[in-house]
Amino acid sequence: MRVSFAEMEAQFLRVLGKLGFEDGKAAHCAGIFARNSEDGVYSHGLNRFPAFVRSVQEGLVNAGAEPEIVRTSGCIEYWDGQQGPGMYIASLAMGRAISLAKKGGLGAVSVRNTNHWMRGGTYGWQAAGAGCIGICATNTIANMPAWGSTEPRLGNNPLVIGVPREKGHIVLDMALSQFSYGKLQEYAWEERPLPVPGGYDGQGALTTDAAAIRSSRRVLPIGYWKGSGLSLVLDVLTAALSSGWSVGDITAAGGGSRLSQFFLAINAAYMDDAVVESIIGYTCSDAVNYPGERTLATRVRNQREGIPVNEQAWEALLAL
Amino acid sequence: MRVSFAEMEAQFLRVLGKLGFEDGKAAHCAGIFARNSEDGVYSHGLNRFPAFVRSVQEGLVNAGAEPEIVRTSGCIEYWDGQQGPGMYIASLAMGRAISLAKKGGLGAVSVRNTNHWMRGGTYGWQAAGAGCIGICATNTIANMPAWGSTEPRLGNNPLVIGVPREKGHIVLDMALSQFSYGKLQEYAWEERPLPVPGGYDGQGALTTDAAAIRSSRRVLPIGYWKGSGLSLVLDVLTAALSSGWSVGDITAAGGGSRLSQFFLAINAAYMDDAVVESIIGYTCSDAVNYPGERTLATRVRNQREGIPVNEQAWEALLAL
Repeated sequence: MRVSFAEMEAQFLRVLGKLGFEDGKAAHCAGIFARNSEDGVYSHGLNRFPAFVRSVQEGLVNAGAEPEIVRTSGCIEYWDGQQGPGMYIASLAMGRAISLAKKGGLGAVSVRNTNHWMRGGTYGWQAAGAGCIGICATNTIANMPAWGSTEPRLGNNPLVIGVPREKGHIVLDMALSQFSYGKLQEYAWEERPLPVPGGYDGQGALTTDAAAIRSSRRVLPIGYWKGSGLSLVLDVLTAALSSGWSVGDITAAGGGSRLSQFFLAINAAYMDDAVVESIIGYTCSDAVNYPGERTLATRVRNQREGIPVNEQAWEALLAL
Repeated sequence: MRVSFAEMEAQFLRVLGKLGFEDGKAAHCAGIFARNSEDGVYSHGLNRFPAFVRSVQEGLVNAGAEPEIVRTSGCIEYWDGQQGPGMYIASLAMGRAISLAKKGGLGAVSVRNTNHWMRGGTYGWQAAGAGCIGICATNTIANMPAWGSTEPRLGNNPLVIGVPREKGHIVLDMALSQFSYGKLQEYAWEERPLPVPGGYDGQGALTTDAAAIRSSRRVLPIGYWKGSGLSLVLDVLTAALSSGWSVGDITAAGGGSRLSQFFLAINAAYMDDAVVESIIGYTCSDAVNYPGERTLATRVRNQREGIPVNEQAWEALLAL
């Protein structure tokens, strides 16, 4: 079945109100969840919402918290997220980076003590929509072995880069594992092989068998040693710069809260749009998409036809 | 055989002087080439130097050129490299980004019309040495098919991130192909299989056969579709932001010159060094290196024992 954006957003709003979110913040968060589903990222929209509600009920996410500015240093601000709602703090942080960049060319916000930002792409689309190149990253719970190790001590720390473009923004939203655990589960359920090797089986051989990887917990970083190194560096960029929790700290605490994030905006006022078009024209084709192209196509379809929902998930939302 | 750093640097200096480099610029460039070899990146030190000399002799690289500031916008400067020596312009650009960051928290230089920067890591080490997190990228000639295509229309556009650390800087220097053509050639010569699949053979199957990949020219981006998207985005970040040449433009001209680059520095004055140590302590072990660790070990050994050189390459330098 499909539901309209307005209908979905209203249901999120209703539940957040019951949880004690004040009106403006509830609207802000409901919009982000609804847009994630509208963009086809159901895993971080409707399907994730009940887990978010639980994290508020359990006190991991503090509905009433507002981020505090710890320090300002030129074009960078350092924030403490006060364990507030991750998607709310992240969009405020990217918004502040955008304001700083509009004034000074560049702007950044380094955030500690925040929570899961749901879909990283949200903040890439946000920056691009405001005429900025946006770059952001978050750390996560440890879920991926470093290259050379068999024990998960790296996060799949997503990296997001958004670039404004009149015909459709370019938005790369890339976790550093080749496949998420959610994606592995889909393949395992359908008993389909992964399109490319996604990790190691119990014997230490590279495999396309999603169930074997889920059981060994040895998911591959993108590019093997390369993504492994990048993941470590993004943990440093998010956690050390903000004096926040690292992947190891988050994992030790067990809850997946108190994440560290980094948001950078570059004013794209002087970017040459003709060069962007020439790059897309040269590289892309019917068979080659630019990052964000399929998201935009999904959004347009879902705006026209309504957002497809899992009926069980929709009923669960109505019952909250 | 091994030669001392001073001996190698003096030979580079001698040749650059003959090519018409003024003294300060010759010393600057000779130092970069010698440090690349000292750090074990022989492919972009001694072994690359004759090709650099030819590019100057052929007029692709203009020894006398100095970069010009096209525009200043807050913490970002836009430069035209005037087709000068790439490693010279890149280190000036990162130097300027560092100065801007020391003053304003962040600094960036967007550069067009420059040339091959040799080893990207050079500028990550430079930023880290100055107490900044440095992030930089360059575009290249097209040498890698986009995901979904069989024709090389992406560059392996390196991404570099350097982080200052007292016990040894963290420096990630990562081209976006899984293996460089140089590395594929080594494996092909030695008739050894690659440690992981590096591209496709003539039948379109993933393979560890380096010779088959060299012949199909279908090298893999790191993370398949993920590195493919990141490569396109880095071309936009370097070329569109600087109004410079894109991968397609560079490739059409055939020479691999007039590259576009981007340099960002983040003042790390408020970075929490204890968090950096805790991340390395948690993630790394005898079997797991942090990015830059092996480079530093090689540097220390080469400083003690001299820089190992291919005798033929050394004789070729002496004859220049």
